[in-house]
Amino acid sequence: MSRQLAQRARDAGRVLAAATGEERAAAVRAIAAALREPGFVGELERANAADVEDARKAGQAEALLDRLRFGAARLAATAQAALEVAALPDPVGEVVERSTRPNGLVVERVRAPLGTILMIYEARPNVTVDAAALCLRSGNACLLRGGSEARRSNEALCAGIGSALSRSGLPADAVLFVPPDRQLLDDLLKEDERIDLCIPRGGPSLIRFVAERSRIPVIKHYLGVCHVYVAEDADLDVAERIVIDAKVSRPGVCNAAECLLVDARSAQAALPRLARALRGRGVELRCDERALPLVAGGVPAKADDFGREFLDLVMAVAVVDGLDGALGHIARYGSRHTEAIVTRDAARAEKFLRGVDASCAVVNASTRFNDGGELGLGAEIGISTSKLHAYGPMGLRELTCTRFLVRGDGQVRT
Amino acid sequence: MSRQLAQRARDAGRVLAAATGEERAAAVRAIAAALREPGFVGELERANAADVEDARKAGQAEALLDRLRFGAARLAATAQAALEVAALPDPVGEVVERSTRPNGLVVERVRAPLGTILMIYEARPNVTVDAAALCLRSGNACLLRGGSEARRSNEALCAGIGSALSRSGLPADAVLFVPPDRQLLDDLLKEDERIDLCIPRGGPSLIRFVAERSRIPVIKHYLGVCHVYVAEDADLDVAERIVIDAKVSRPGVCNAAECLLVDARSAQAALPRLARALRGRGVELRCDERALPLVAGGVPAKADDFGREFLDLVMAVAVVDGLDGALGHIARYGSRHTEAIVTRDAARAEKFLRGVDASCAVVNASTRFNDGGELGLGAEIGISTSKLHAYGPMGLRELTCTRFLVRGDGQVRT
Repeated sequence: MSRQLAQRARDAGRVLAAATGEERAAAVRAIAAALREPGFVGELERANAADVEDARKAGQAEALLDRLRFGAARLAATAQAALEVAALPDPVGEVVERSTRPNGLVVERVRAPLGTILMIYEARPNVTVDAAALCLRSGNACLLRGGSEARRSNEALCAGIGSALSRSGLPADAVLFVPPDRQLLDDLLKEDERIDLCIPRGGPSLIRFVAERSRIPVIKHYLGVCHVYVAEDADLDVAERIVIDAKVSRPGVCNAAECLLVDARSAQAALPRLARALRGRGVELRCDERALPLVAGGVPAKADDFGREFLDLVMAVAVVDGLDGALGHIARYGSRHTEAIVTRDAARAEKFLRGVDASCAVVNASTRFNDGGELGLGAEIGISTSKLHAYGPMGLRELTCTRFLVRGDGQVRT
Repeated sequence: MSRQLAQRARDAGRVLAAATGEERAAAVRAIAAALREPGFVGELERANAADVEDARKAGQAEALLDRLRFGAARLAATAQAALEVAALPDPVGEVVERSTRPNGLVVERVRAPLGTILMIYEARPNVTVDAAALCLRSGNACLLRGGSEARRSNEALCAGIGSALSRSGLPADAVLFVPPDRQLLDDLLKEDERIDLCIPRGGPSLIRFVAERSRIPVIKHYLGVCHVYVAEDADLDVAERIVIDAKVSRPGVCNAAECLLVDARSAQAALPRLARALRGRGVELRCDERALPLVAGGVPAKADDFGREFLDLVMAVAVVDGLDGALGHIARYGSRHTEAIVTRDAARAEKFLRGVDASCAVVNASTRFNDGGELGLGAEIGISTSKLHAYGPMGLRELTCTRFLVRGDGQVRT
């Protein structure tokens, strides 16, 4: 079962790699159109309603139910996002470098698809469409293994995508639904001859399951434990605006801030003000011993509140000693996702950028800018917290590899 | 033991990442100088002689003994190679892309070290020095786990490198000797929180051992089963020169050709001539049924001679039907390393380049050009046959990742 599934994807990937960029873009447009057809919308709504009903009966939290809900409006927005992916420049065949060697050889480094990508994610049906569009546009086949709660929705989406592919003249197997079954996933993770990349997006237990078992290269899209460090010289208007945006604008996403660090030298002035602004937006503040006396309405932090991804209107708060104190705290508790400093001192800002280990280091702006669209990559498949191959947002280019093409006229080495 | 070792390397890597490019280059130059000191040369010669003697007693093949031998001349050549690495441009901090977003954010994508690299290789002591120089120059700490036959040589080399590092003011732990012990390796491969990349170079059993057990990302430097396809319209002078260079110039390396494919339409003219040239250089030719009648002195190929890395003066020979026949043969038996075509038809050449899946695809030149130096990357740590992160030769840049630096003046998303 797992081998057949992986082989079907691999065979389809060969066809995709040989197709032109325009053929792949047209297929993505055809998918977007198919998802808007009234017959399909009705079918998907029924499948999704059944998923939501089962999840409710199983006592799932409202946050999960909200991510799971996928009605006509969300479907239309997702189809629109797919159209935007279709309009992005084709990464395949892009010449990254070209040189002529002293012996006359012309050496090019060009982008090529990876082959087959296994996506593993939780109960967000829009990821099914986003991943299919990005993989197809970059010439890759994909195996889509979403969460069990979204099973019917994902199966319906993959069926719709497959039909649209067939009508476009590309293989329906280029996007394959993988039933949510742990044994099947375990088997697929051994198919390193047929699958080129595995991208897990989700919580710790899912990521650990995949990382421990996979023989396929894995790029983890993992926790965002993002900090905002307010340096002693920070402009407090700027600091307040950034901290509020980073924490409150969308608390459930990975680039939201989870911890506020305030410099000891300015904490007396800065912390009460920042705390008041956060509390005014309904944020619960869990404070270390030094921060607590300065935070009206704060509660004492527990040990595991630092390094924790709340994904909610909750924030840890600590007072640190200077830039080194901030960097030390982040080295201990950060997740290599996004780290921000607020300062007016350019030298301090540069020292922070050099010294912090994160896929995106930010000066005087919100952590929420670590996003493919905001950083200029176009749509993204997620944000990698692995360093290999792609670190940070993964757009179309990050779903390709480069290879060498060498053109000569009879050159030999001896 | 494994955790302590990995932690020591990781801590040293933090210091390396904060050092300047010139400090890292100076350390590599200090290592090159240390390896040429008479006292050290004598010490290494004694260690290497003992390794070679033990290997001989254990009945190791002459090819292994030759790779293992590491006297003053090879040491001097290796030290010279390290000096060349020291002279290469620093990849760390290189700005790969820079843009200003509509909201005024300045977004840079810059190169940073990976962190800690675990190298696993066989009995070539020069790899110890090459890997140390490339890792240090690119800001990475390394754990060097060479073959057991070279144990004394590698331990002596790592001790010499460590002393030179200390004298340069960088941590000696930035280059650590890993005793050749399977249990220790097994444990190290679980240290994915402390080791960022594992590079195995070697035979199938070593690669399989690593790939099945590692939780650390692995870039395989694996078999080179390289083909030369002589198309029907090939200039036979060019074809002969390329085939001889690809097979004979250095048969024991991964970019040497292992299989000759000749088009059926021109086989009557081309094959006897190419075969005569190869046989004249002492190459044993193992032929499929269609090639055998055209090859004087050829022997019938066994089934496993196709897809086999001989690393010797042996070559498989097959007659194929046109470009599609050649591409089909390579898709079945190639190892994604290097594939070459000899043709005078530009359209056929481009179709071959597009259709062949290899880290390096070559038109009218020898397969032996798939090499970091020849392709303009400078020194290399090996040739990756994995697609993720680096595909083909891995130079200094391929030992780095890129991360995003974002500079703003108070931007928020809402």
